[in-house]
Amino acid sequence: MISFARGAPSLDIVDVEGLKQAAADAFTSDPAGTTAYGTAIGYVPLRRWIAEQHGVDEARVIVTNGSMQADAFLFDALVEPGDAVVVEKPTYDRTLLGLQHRGAEIHMVDLEPDGISVDGLRALLESGVRPKLAHIIPNFQNPAGYTLSREKRVALLDLAREHGFTIFEDDPYIEIRFSGHALPTMLSLDGPEDEHVVYASSFSKTVCPGIRVGYLVGPEDLIARITKAATNTYISPNMVAQSVVYQFCATGRITGAVETVSRALAERVEALTTALGEHLPEARFQAPEGGYFMWVELPEGTDVHVLFDAATERGVTFVKGTDFLLEGGENTLRLAYSGVTTDQIDEGVRRLAEAYRSL
Amino acid sequence: MISFARGAPSLDIVDVEGLKQAAADAFTSDPAGTTAYGTAIGYVPLRRWIAEQHGVDEARVIVTNGSMQADAFLFDALVEPGDAVVVEKPTYDRTLLGLQHRGAEIHMVDLEPDGISVDGLRALLESGVRPKLAHIIPNFQNPAGYTLSREKRVALLDLAREHGFTIFEDDPYIEIRFSGHALPTMLSLDGPEDEHVVYASSFSKTVCPGIRVGYLVGPEDLIARITKAATNTYISPNMVAQSVVYQFCATGRITGAVETVSRALAERVEALTTALGEHLPEARFQAPEGGYFMWVELPEGTDVHVLFDAATERGVTFVKGTDFLLEGGENTLRLAYSGVTTDQIDEGVRRLAEAYRSL
Repeated sequence: MISFARGAPSLDIVDVEGLKQAAADAFTSDPAGTTAYGTAIGYVPLRRWIAEQHGVDEARVIVTNGSMQADAFLFDALVEPGDAVVVEKPTYDRTLLGLQHRGAEIHMVDLEPDGISVDGLRALLESGVRPKLAHIIPNFQNPAGYTLSREKRVALLDLAREHGFTIFEDDPYIEIRFSGHALPTMLSLDGPEDEHVVYASSFSKTVCPGIRVGYLVGPEDLIARITKAATNTYISPNMVAQSVVYQFCATGRITGAVETVSRALAERVEALTTALGEHLPEARFQAPEGGYFMWVELPEGTDVHVLFDAATERGVTFVKGTDFLLEGGENTLRLAYSGVTTDQIDEGVRRLAEAYRSL
Repeated sequence: MISFARGAPSLDIVDVEGLKQAAADAFTSDPAGTTAYGTAIGYVPLRRWIAEQHGVDEARVIVTNGSMQADAFLFDALVEPGDAVVVEKPTYDRTLLGLQHRGAEIHMVDLEPDGISVDGLRALLESGVRPKLAHIIPNFQNPAGYTLSREKRVALLDLAREHGFTIFEDDPYIEIRFSGHALPTMLSLDGPEDEHVVYASSFSKTVCPGIRVGYLVGPEDLIARITKAATNTYISPNMVAQSVVYQFCATGRITGAVETVSRALAERVEALTTALGEHLPEARFQAPEGGYFMWVELPEGTDVHVLFDAATERGVTFVKGTDFLLEGGENTLRLAYSGVTTDQIDEGVRRLAEAYRSL
């Protein structure tokens, strides 16, 4: 089975030796901090490192057991049943699930190749909807692979100020850019006095997913509330893992790891787009500039559920576009190229095309 | 400041070198399983190892980010607002907090030197209270240091069967026994067909607290429900930490670690009881056979809040007994001897006695 389904790196692009060394460094250089209970804010040196990266005060940062846990804390803190929340259309399926679980009133706003439709969001706001939160994945969006333009980042912040909602900038892929130019985060554009952005990221894509270290940057009072909830949930997050991540970052290994991953993913996107052009020219897509995912549209009328079964029979799998939407998307799919090697990609697309021809 | 407050081991009894080796082994022997996303059940080899230790099917085990997180999942699964829950009097303050937070109707039943008062619990049940759950810390209870006798373990199970409640056997200290004889868990006494016990334990006391690995053993359908909630909370717990714990256990290092900790704690209890006899003969206590904590009663009329301040001024601290109760306990305190070395203990008790004399 060739899997374009899972958003996870293949083992060959994980710096296992570097991690082993970082673990040894963690136990050697800070045995007490690494092995003892910490507090819910996370491992202090890593929290400080993150704060420095973002140029914010440490009190605005909490380091958690993965960024999904951070999302859960944030939703628990901000989203009451019946609250309006804006998400991108399509968006990450677990975000949809987390919001549905909390009884949010979900408003999906079209995602365009340069990010969420600002006109669509403005129209929604003008219709009287008062969202508590707008969830935005700005870079190499999951599932679409699209990136929010600079102009739209500024426009979104203007809308957030005008209408008093919080932008949840969910940014785990930011470091994995392999073409084009980096754009400023909305967190940095918001300025120190304004507090319209809560930013989340993670080390899953730069260190490894099994390490489960993520974080939030937000207004100090919100972070304090979330820290209290985290204390009551688990006393402290994983200090061993956070100390290992700190060593991996502080010694600069993370720079090499990001280069390795970015180089490999650039090759995989190239292989994927070439193979699609060759074997499945009906597929429409925009090649991503980074991240793990590419969104593919097939001709109207294609039934992705039938395609999925036909593909599985032929030894290739993906995630149906419908999983990232509340309705529609029957002719769409998400291809993750993070976990497949280039030689698998050509064969996988060949099988996918064969499945499509069989419909 | 000499601290009898925190239930955590001093660094000298943590096997830091063993942990460093276990981390190297984890990345070397299973790089894929250690660095990739896992699933919410936990790291598969560790889950299997735990299941074997308890002689249960793997499907009955979930390995979590520390046992507090396991408690939170269990309470979320079983406790609705208004549900009656039995706890020991006194009990672990975070358990009280977690239950209060969920709106449980808490019934505290007296804790005796051989465990919870079975007569007291029976009287409560006969008064018509129908608890969903009884939370019991059977070995070297926190805060009292008492251990539930074998007879009472059997009697509690009989009551659970008769009245249809679940015993939450919260057992993080079981391995840290330094005198007397090990008693069977209620989980093992319950038998394979009966499902009246959910068992929780952790590696915080045997490996180290910063590793944040705990687990639940329970009925298969309940574990499946909790696994689903865990997936939605954090996808997977920390695979790096769980793989390190697995290596630490599978290579037998854990046996040596438990011996080191138990030997040290036996010496500390000896030092503590000797010092109390010498400097503070008014103190009444029962020396624990294991664990981290000893409960101390001072003469009626002692105000522990005043004592706490007087002690802090003199450079010694502890946790007030009132923190472990909903009411009463003004003449009681919990002394944790896990984090203090023997030479600190004599001086700490000397200061405590001086504070007591100053009242």
